[in-house]
Amino acid sequence: MEKQTLGEKTAEKLLNMIHERGYTAGDKLPTEMELCQLLGAGRNTVREALRILVSRNIVTIRQGAGTFISEKNGVPDDPLGFSMMEDRRKLTRDLLQIRVMLEPPIAALAAQNADEEDIQKLEEILLKVEELIERREDYSQKDSQFHAQIAACSHNTVMSNLVPVITEGVRIFASTVRETEYVQTLASHRAIFRAIKEKKAVEAQEAMTYHLMYNQNRYRDEEKEE
Amino acid sequence: MEKQTLGEKTAEKLLNMIHERGYTAGDKLPTEMELCQLLGAGRNTVREALRILVSRNIVTIRQGAGTFISEKNGVPDDPLGFSMMEDRRKLTRDLLQIRVMLEPPIAALAAQNADEEDIQKLEEILLKVEELIERREDYSQKDSQFHAQIAACSHNTVMSNLVPVITEGVRIFASTVRETEYVQTLASHRAIFRAIKEKKAVEAQEAMTYHLMYNQNRYRDEEKEE
Repeated sequence: MEKQTLGEKTAEKLLNMIHERGYTAGDKLPTEMELCQLLGAGRNTVREALRILVSRNIVTIRQGAGTFISEKNGVPDDPLGFSMMEDRRKLTRDLLQIRVMLEPPIAALAAQNADEEDIQKLEEILLKVEELIERREDYSQKDSQFHAQIAACSHNTVMSNLVPVITEGVRIFASTVRETEYVQTLASHRAIFRAIKEKKAVEAQEAMTYHLMYNQNRYRDEEKEE
Repeated sequence: MEKQTLGEKTAEKLLNMIHERGYTAGDKLPTEMELCQLLGAGRNTVREALRILVSRNIVTIRQGAGTFISEKNGVPDDPLGFSMMEDRRKLTRDLLQIRVMLEPPIAALAAQNADEEDIQKLEEILLKVEELIERREDYSQKDSQFHAQIAACSHNTVMSNLVPVITEGVRIFASTVRETEYVQTLASHRAIFRAIKEKKAVEAQEAMTYHLMYNQNRYRDEEKEE
């Protein structure tokens, strides 16, 4: 066991306090002075503890406004160590392979578990992607959100944190979209959304498989052409 | 875009240097003095850059020995934000669900892609698990390693980083093993290993599915009994 510093111990205490008080994303934490009293620690120790929780994306400090629970749910930046993988093409292939394995069963789960609110949110994102496609604008970020929201619909909290890492990875490392993709994306997203809304798990899984296989094949073709 | 501090910029430069020089896990970095010269930065900035790369598990500092490339491949501690998930039981169920989705196709990939060295390493871990089971000792850590090595056999680098996070999560949050599990683990691990060694992707996938479904059902039974 590694020895914990006072700052690390205080960070653990602060994390427990966050759980006990039931804070969620966006909630404001007590002031630094109040935290000193609540945690029985000095100002420097509390600051060190806050720095640790900031680096873990558990809290975020907004200058002048205070300390808040981060919207990132404690998922650090670059959680899967992409920055240490030098071969961007292999990384993209590996990510696409994981998507094909993981996202179809997630779509099935989403069809089974999504509630009204989840589906409404998914539809809003769907419409935004469609709007961007109509205008032939870059829709990649909204596309990532669409897949992330399907993961949220699954009600598996680990998936909700994992899928955005994978889809954002593909978005960052893969090359840009082509004209042919617009039509395919429109149709596939619609089919996936409809199946989830109608609680048809099998259709949702199939539609997601088709969508991702298409993307994977397109990437393989691109690599061959170069 | 957020503004980068000098320390963060220097951390990026240092990361590029690590890639350019082809450093891998365990390699020693130049001294702090040398890094100041190589990166054209002052001592405090280099220290800040090193602190950032340490917190991302890209490098590790061993007191008195120097700075080394971390064995953790740039995967931070708690990459999927488990510390923010309060309900340990739901977390365990979610993790087991992901294992059932992800590890069978990984086992198939492992059977297809593993080389001699991968298989030898897998066999060594298999034998250690068996030895611990014979002595009725806690084999959970070695068991995690067995599954992590199968992910390494897949030659999908993202999987290699992801699977240990999931299996270690289950190990930490799930309850202890029961007597009945020993026999099942011995047989399942053997079957998985044999299929991978013989390059039988379908059998590997089936054996992994059976193994994980057994675990998932056992956990569900446990929850019902309580």
